Amino acid sequence: MTQPNDILDRVAATIASRKGADPAASYVAKLFSKGDDAILKKIGEEATETVMAAKDARVSGDGSKVLYEVADLWFHSLVLLAQFDLTPQQVLDELARREGVSGIAEKAARKE
Amino acid sequence: MTQPNDILDRVAATIASRKGADPAASYVAKLFSKGDDAILKKIGEEATETVMAAKDARVSGDGSKVLYEVADLWFHSLVLLAQFDLTPQQVLDELARREGVSGIAEKAARKE
Amino acid sequence: MTQPNDILDRVAATIASRKGADPAASYVAKLFSKGDDAILKKIGEEATETVMAAKDARVSGDGSKVLYEVADLWFHSLVLLAQFDLTPQQVLDELARREGVSGIAEKAARKE
Amino acid sequence: MTQPNDILDRVAATIASRKGADPAASYVAKLFSKGDDAILKKIGEEATETVMAAKDARVSGDGSKVLYEVADLWFHSLVLLAQFDLTPQQVLDELARREGVSGIAEKAARKE
Repeated sequence: MTQPNDILDRVAATIASRKGADPAASYVAKLFSKGDDAILKKIGEEATETVMAAKDARVSGDGSKVLYEVADLWFHSLVLLAQFDLTPQQVLDELARREGVSGIAEKAARKE
Repeated sequence: MTQPNDILDRVAATIASRKGADPAASYVAKLFSKGDDAILKKIGEEATETVMAAKDARVSGDGSKVLYEVADLWFHSLVLLAQFDLTPQQVLDELARREGVSGIAEKAARKE
Repeated sequence: MTQPNDILDRVAATIASRKGADPAASYVAKLFSKGDDAILKKIGEEATETVMAAKDARVSGDGSKVLYEVADLWFHSLVLLAQFDLTPQQVLDELARREGVSGIAEKAARKE
Repeated sequence: MTQPNDILDRVAATIASRKGADPAASYVAKLFSKGDDAILKKIGEEATETVMAAKDARVSGDGSKVLYEVADLWFHSLVLLAQFDLTPQQVLDELARREGVSGIAEKAARKE
């Protein structure tokens, strides 16, 4: 078990509290009311926007847009996790588990 | 400033240590040696795999594949952040900043 | 040069006629007025929806949603081509050029 | 029924002939042998590469990479259609059907 992350847990808790809430009351409640496909569409959308932001950042020399889009991508990942009753802690535990595997072993284990 | 997250910081540090390393020695070193497009391609790929995993999870009733794919997506987000000399802490700070904004104000601030 | 395709040419001509038109008058005129990023976002979005439709089609046994989403993806590809002053005929010519290459040679020419 | 498109039909016929063929013999036969997810992953991948190519084209002023990536995206769309026993002619018919709808009516029919 890795150390809990305050902000990820806090955002995940807020997101979870919007499940079943009035869709008119918040952006996340509206996403949940629309269901899986609306959330998954956002994952695809935010990934595309991250790619565009990175391309722009190379031209402008300003990486802040990349930061903003990765935050968007992670935020919607948290919504997806909540939709499947999963937690960011479980994702961190999975990353920790892999971190235990050495780089070369990890490489060998990946098909790529 | 939010509390540092042990595992995200640790994985980010490992990733950063692979910048400029022998491409043959690790998967991440190889990604860095290929440059922006290879990393961005992985972001698009992992987002697509997350979407497929979520669709499968609804049929199988087993959410663990979603967890695994979100971990992959976050891992490659960490590689992208390192590529632009950004840190996961900055993403968490951005999420914390938004968390301060109320749900309704956040909704109003979003286009969609 | 391959034989011109009536419907692709006709749709491309309609799309091209919307460049610089009143954004309030049509969906495509509005897309053009927003510029590259809005069009590229749609490419990412329609690709994600194609993936979701294919997953759904395997469960429902009804492939018509796949057809509809591929049509959406090709339609927005035509908008992107117009944005870069390219034509569907040029895409068909490229496909014809590759068709001339035998399957095994084509495979050898691909990295993956 | 729209006029047949020689090249799309020809490429679709070649692709269809690879279904069930020796995976070692061609790239497409190998894709089919891997199944839905491998094909869908390519749709996501080619969409991401199209987005990157368009961003690059704005910097370089050379649109040819966009053309190449759209050809890749359409090619893998043809593989997906074949996987679901659909034809490019059906996609063209769907585009023709929509073309009959006026721009304003089309816009009204779209959510976004």
